[in-house]
Amino acid sequence: MKATAPALNEFELIARLTRNLPTNASTRVGPGDDCAVLDLGLPDRWLLFKTDAVVEGVHFHKSAAPERLGHKALARCLSDVAAMAGTPTHALVTLALPLGYDLAFVEGLYAGMKALAKRHRVALVGGETTTSPELIWLSVAVLGTVVPGKCPLRSGAKAGDALFVTGELGGSLAGQHLDFEPRLAEARWLVRHCPIHAMIDLSDGLAGDLRHVLNASAVGAELRAASVPISRAARQAARASSTAKPPLAAALTDGEDYELLFTVAGRDAVPLLDAWKKAFPALRLTCIGKITDAPGLVLIDRKGRCPLTSDGYVHFQKS
Amino acid sequence: MKATAPALNEFELIARLTRNLPTNASTRVGPGDDCAVLDLGLPDRWLLFKTDAVVEGVHFHKSAAPERLGHKALARCLSDVAAMAGTPTHALVTLALPLGYDLAFVEGLYAGMKALAKRHRVALVGGETTTSPELIWLSVAVLGTVVPGKCPLRSGAKAGDALFVTGELGGSLAGQHLDFEPRLAEARWLVRHCPIHAMIDLSDGLAGDLRHVLNASAVGAELRAASVPISRAARQAARASSTAKPPLAAALTDGEDYELLFTVAGRDAVPLLDAWKKAFPALRLTCIGKITDAPGLVLIDRKGRCPLTSDGYVHFQKS
Repeated sequence: MKATAPALNEFELIARLTRNLPTNASTRVGPGDDCAVLDLGLPDRWLLFKTDAVVEGVHFHKSAAPERLGHKALARCLSDVAAMAGTPTHALVTLALPLGYDLAFVEGLYAGMKALAKRHRVALVGGETTTSPELIWLSVAVLGTVVPGKCPLRSGAKAGDALFVTGELGGSLAGQHLDFEPRLAEARWLVRHCPIHAMIDLSDGLAGDLRHVLNASAVGAELRAASVPISRAARQAARASSTAKPPLAAALTDGEDYELLFTVAGRDAVPLLDAWKKAFPALRLTCIGKITDAPGLVLIDRKGRCPLTSDGYVHFQKS
Repeated sequence: MKATAPALNEFELIARLTRNLPTNASTRVGPGDDCAVLDLGLPDRWLLFKTDAVVEGVHFHKSAAPERLGHKALARCLSDVAAMAGTPTHALVTLALPLGYDLAFVEGLYAGMKALAKRHRVALVGGETTTSPELIWLSVAVLGTVVPGKCPLRSGAKAGDALFVTGELGGSLAGQHLDFEPRLAEARWLVRHCPIHAMIDLSDGLAGDLRHVLNASAVGAELRAASVPISRAARQAARASSTAKPPLAAALTDGEDYELLFTVAGRDAVPLLDAWKKAFPALRLTCIGKITDAPGLVLIDRKGRCPLTSDGYVHFQKS
């Protein structure tokens, strides 16, 4: 395609394309959050609506086991439903295949999706198979439900909020990105136990996704470097190669962690941590900082305060 | 991809992949109809859920105006909602773009979708933009609603039914496939005015889509060749080239007509035609045959009865 205008980055393009989109009275939340939120008249439930795609050569290589790729394609959508504290109910699968596709590979993709769908009682209600000139791509559309008023948006963070993250971050491409379990039960537990002001799932990386929350909420944040939970995979990668990202940089920017990042009022932080440890003893929950009135994202470490820019990780040097 | 098993055709592959899919209690209709039908507890409405994709080099060439491609991508989904006599409410757009994409082209795609969405009061509630290694593809997911009990399936045709089609068929690739208007109002009018036993929209071609209805309903059909409404485009194409399909073959097999094919009880046929002419004087409605107990699809012309096989059109010779 001839480039007749300078290409925008993904977020600039989305901002441009989602200006002035048609809407209607049943749309509670349109573009810009983890899912669209729709009110079709059910007294006790809003609908969640989301699509997500994985493309060969971009999101996966065919050398991966197809069951894991199928798992990932559906799990990414379910993770977005988790970010709204919802319950996924139905999914449609659109699969584009080159003419000489490998039937065993395609059946493996479906086996991975079916296993995950069954665990979460999601009905796979159809979809479409189409020809692709060369590469495989797999697009999943998901419907879910959420309790009105218990659906945290990206835009609800308030100055003074405590900032939490589940699990451990970084190094996901070593394997975790193909095997993660969407945090559906954890998210629903959270909204039942505490007013959650804002929530997002981590797909772009802690620094990038936190920035989405800050922009949507018109606030800033301070991150305590020493509190960021770093995965074993990120530490191992840093030890294995002198050119790898330092572990903290990996935790901030690797992406594909699919953990939950959320904020609660400062006074709720300690009781929430105590209750969480009883409910989910095997899954870490960490307070990594706080929301501020001052805009921007600041990292606090031994040396002091350091602004994190959008290409923040490049200024982290391996020590 | 290495082909380790013989490739199946599209319908065989879908049949294989949709075996034993996870389901749940709120799923009224899963794979195999124009939309999935879901009962989430709304007393007066079921939900319709559908995805559809168009791929560069398969469904379109970049030489087409992007507004028309955007229109087509959304209109294909809306046509599936029409086939269930539903009302589309919300759509999500997944767009995969090569790195050097043309911003004006992408904005054109969106302009086409937005114009159609506005006309039908469909909210575009977001979606996703992702990188594609080379080609553009565009996948649309649509939600809609339908009145319970007024949602015709493919499986409801009965022996003795009259078989109807809207509009004129064949030659769509000359332009109509990029500009068609989904028959939403017409389909809702139909279910209000007459018990519709089975309905489908014509995307694969009359012969192919009628076969989907016959298989789903376990019946056969007789088509009267002289009654099949042939488009001007199909007649012009046949006149213009001695190697073009004869007009009747084009009407039976060209595909992408996006008209409605449906069946009603024989006694309802004449009153329905009379009422239709008053409601939609500008759109042809034609009775083209009848549903039979005997399986298979038979074409009746001056020379007698001729079975239409799945590759039926090849035996039509230009006269």
